[in-house]
Amino acid sequence: MQEAVALRVGLLGFGTVGSSFAEVLAATGADVRITRIFNRDVERKKSHERAKFVGAEVKWTSDATEVVTAEDVDVVVEVIGGLEPIEGWLTTAIHAGKHIVTANKQLIAYRGATLLALAAEKKVHLLYNAAVAGGVPVIPGITQGLSGDKITRISGILNGTCNFILSAMEKGAEYADVLKTAQSLGYAEANPSADVDGFDARAKLCVLSRLALRAELNPDEVPAQTISTVAAIDFAYAKELGCTLRQVSRAEVAGGKVHARVGPMLVPKEMPIAWSHDTQNMVVTSGEFGGDVVFSGHGAGGHPTAVAVTSDVLRIAAGAAAVRFPATASSVDGDVTAPHYIRFVVADQPGIVAAIAGALAKYNVNIDSLLQHRGYAAEKLPFVVTTEPCLRSTLERAVAEIAALEYMLEAPLVLQILTSDDHATD
Amino acid sequence: MQEAVALRVGLLGFGTVGSSFAEVLAATGADVRITRIFNRDVERKKSHERAKFVGAEVKWTSDATEVVTAEDVDVVVEVIGGLEPIEGWLTTAIHAGKHIVTANKQLIAYRGATLLALAAEKKVHLLYNAAVAGGVPVIPGITQGLSGDKITRISGILNGTCNFILSAMEKGAEYADVLKTAQSLGYAEANPSADVDGFDARAKLCVLSRLALRAELNPDEVPAQTISTVAAIDFAYAKELGCTLRQVSRAEVAGGKVHARVGPMLVPKEMPIAWSHDTQNMVVTSGEFGGDVVFSGHGAGGHPTAVAVTSDVLRIAAGAAAVRFPATASSVDGDVTAPHYIRFVVADQPGIVAAIAGALAKYNVNIDSLLQHRGYAAEKLPFVVTTEPCLRSTLERAVAEIAALEYMLEAPLVLQILTSDDHATD
Ligand SMILES: NC(=O)c1ccc[n+]([C@@H]2O[C@H](COP(=O)([O-])OP(=O)(O)OC[C@H]3O[C@@H](n4cnc5c(N)ncnc54)[C@H](OP(=O)(O)O)[C@@H]3O)[C@@H](O)[C@H]2O)c1
Ligand SMILES: NC(=O)c1ccc[n+]([C@@H]2O[C@H](COP(=O)([O-])OP(=O)(O)OC[C@H]3O[C@@H](n4cnc5c(N)ncnc54)[C@H](OP(=O)(O)O)[C@@H]3O)[C@@H](O)[C@H]2O)c1
Repeated sequence: MQEAVALRVGLLGFGTVGSSFAEVLAATGADVRITRIFNRDVERKKSHERAKFVGAEVKWTSDATEVVTAEDVDVVVEVIGGLEPIEGWLTTAIHAGKHIVTANKQLIAYRGATLLALAAEKKVHLLYNAAVAGGVPVIPGITQGLSGDKITRISGILNGTCNFILSAMEKGAEYADVLKTAQSLGYAEANPSADVDGFDARAKLCVLSRLALRAELNPDEVPAQTISTVAAIDFAYAKELGCTLRQVSRAEVAGGKVHARVGPMLVPKEMPIAWSHDTQNMVVTSGEFGGDVVFSGHGAGGHPTAVAVTSDVLRIAAGAAAVRFPATASSVDGDVTAPHYIRFVVADQPGIVAAIAGALAKYNVNIDSLLQHRGYAAEKLPFVVTTEPCLRSTLERAVAEIAALEYMLEAPLVLQILTSDDHATD
Repeated sequence: MQEAVALRVGLLGFGTVGSSFAEVLAATGADVRITRIFNRDVERKKSHERAKFVGAEVKWTSDATEVVTAEDVDVVVEVIGGLEPIEGWLTTAIHAGKHIVTANKQLIAYRGATLLALAAEKKVHLLYNAAVAGGVPVIPGITQGLSGDKITRISGILNGTCNFILSAMEKGAEYADVLKTAQSLGYAEANPSADVDGFDARAKLCVLSRLALRAELNPDEVPAQTISTVAAIDFAYAKELGCTLRQVSRAEVAGGKVHARVGPMLVPKEMPIAWSHDTQNMVVTSGEFGGDVVFSGHGAGGHPTAVAVTSDVLRIAAGAAAVRFPATASSVDGDVTAPHYIRFVVADQPGIVAAIAGALAKYNVNIDSLLQHRGYAAEKLPFVVTTEPCLRSTLERAVAEIAALEYMLEAPLVLQILTSDDHATD
């Protein structure tokens, strides 16, 4: 016979996070019990090494509807991922009066507005602390601790895989090699596009924008630049400029617009963003009254992510009120006024610098410095131009003209140089 | 006529934080209004530059009881400070069914257990995010975002004044000069003892220990070492050891005991704790499942602190449930096993090193290195010994013997060297 518990959990997904959740929840000793577990082809999950952390009376099923509408489930914990068929299952669960805890950033980024409105209507919780920065409590920090401030900007290292790759490249590794290492360690997927091309980080940035900037964004509108074109030489030049390179996600409210962008950027060594190493995540919020607040830690991994999921479940168990912050639907302006770094690779010949300088001047982009390391062959010569603050879209038009010059061997790489006082266009 | 608002605030104290709270609350546009303001000798406060942020209908009073039991007050916000007469007023307010928000670390450290129990009994909130690290949402992070973890250690930079002093000394300033600067900037009191001797940080450490370690400590039992004996030369030696110096507050659960200590420590440059500059605060929590999480930002100042107070008020307005975590009364073990730094100042003569080494050997303390900079007069020669990890209490016995040697000109300075894997005694 099963005694009454304060809260009963129906678990969707028994993979990395799901099985870690079972372990972390058991360790809390809280009066919360997993009553049902759904996974496709569930039989093999019963012999999972972490199956021992759930009680013998748990009902395992390969039919999600047996969980989302079950009498003996108060909270549905979703740790599968993706939009479909998840959205449908969770919608059914909310209609059935179940609270929801999820780690699914894509779902919350793309369908969050609808689901949150439905949850509010049905007076249930929809909590998703694990969806951004895994074990780092950025979402409770913003929603509970900084709700009194007017946050105008968020900058973050939101993808641990990219941070692992770029911080290894900082120490001398080549992109292709470190990507392979990341794949063999399980940090990167066989198809790494979601991580390296910025789609994962962009979804998280939109989740944070909703909470911190109160702006509802369409993730697809946020420009995402890949880190896959960053090379060892860029780290060498960045170092010379007192910087390192990180995949940075940034959103800022200025002049009534939301400026947002994800991609590799040059980060001055003294900025907190430069301190993240390996798979660490970091979020810096900038508030009108409270100034900059930094959160950092393990953004991923089964256990840290399960801590966030478990903390959400405990909040519901404690009877937390369903606090909502209104967010306004906003369009994204992907443009930014900032200093930039441009790396060219050319077949050297007289007149190149003049041609580049001329093209930049035509668009009123001022050159700040011109860097060229020795020891490269003239047939394939990399060199770097840094600019004074300029509008990225203007710069890209100038660079497009330069890219068309016959002696350009590669597409020029344009990267924003982060400064603490750079500002969005307005 | 006053329209009905969601929440009515009675404000105790219209000083730095109180007046900033009026401004920050007004900026949120939330449906929350200050109805009463208490301050001693209140007339002069009506012409305070931030009085414009409260409505004309607010009732100003020099009688606290007119606020704490008033019909038109739902939440009492206390930003005066100190134990008496505050405890009495807030007890009356709780009995009258008022929620409490306070920034008072001494009150929460020394009387928190009693007040929190009373608040739980009377089903009102007692929130105090501003009491630790001002505008940095460490408390919501721990209680809302990390409640699923088992936190075993907290390390922090909890006093902005000490951090200001020590980070200025790192750049070459002398203690006495930078203390004067801190006083003229309003960072330090005329009597700086609460800050520099560690009593302020110790109260905050105990507040965090209750929440993160679930251990109820008596602040007076936590050893607090002053930073006033740290000198420029210690920074020079620390640098040689790859370290800087910070006032660190640390509490750890190990072997069923709570080990806690506040004081200047040598911090390796690569540890996050070393990154705090100026008046910044930082807290690092170490969890069994989630690993290390770092929070940092402005630990003090009217506006950042008011953001924390306002966020608490908004949480109550949103109908947050009064979540409580049980904490166990625990005694403090101030001892630690760690490498240490000892700076001696001697009148040089043959045999000193042998005498020191002999005394340390007698207590089984192993010397790791012996550092001596050139250029000091033999009559007043500073030099440094670092030890391998040893029990601090044992080391202090050895150092007491050494201090008695006739050629010791000053009391030797003993500082812990922070390492990421140092452990409490058990
Ligand atoms: N891992 C992290 O570090 C991390 C961090 C933050 C957030 N998250 C999020 O947490 C969620 C889960 O991640 P994870 O790392 O735990 O993934 P995972 O290890 O792949 O686990 C997913 C589980 O769901 C099952 N599953 C997948 N698709 C299914 C379907 N259509 N029907 C039924 N079962 C299905 C999988 O079964 P099979 O065993 O058959 O594949 C697996 O057991 C994702 O939303 C992810 O973005 C993860
Ligand atoms: N300032 C910060 O950065 C900061 C950060 C974190 C927490 N806190 C905490 O916030 C609280 C307030 O700090 P604060 O900086 O705002 O101090 P403050 O500027 O000195 O303000 C205190 C206010 O309370 C009034 N007051 C003091 N004692 C009183 C008494 N016995 N009866 C009536 N009124 C009295 C003072 O009036 P007078 O004008 O007559 O002195 C003043 O208006 C303290 O608990 C402090 O520890 C402050």
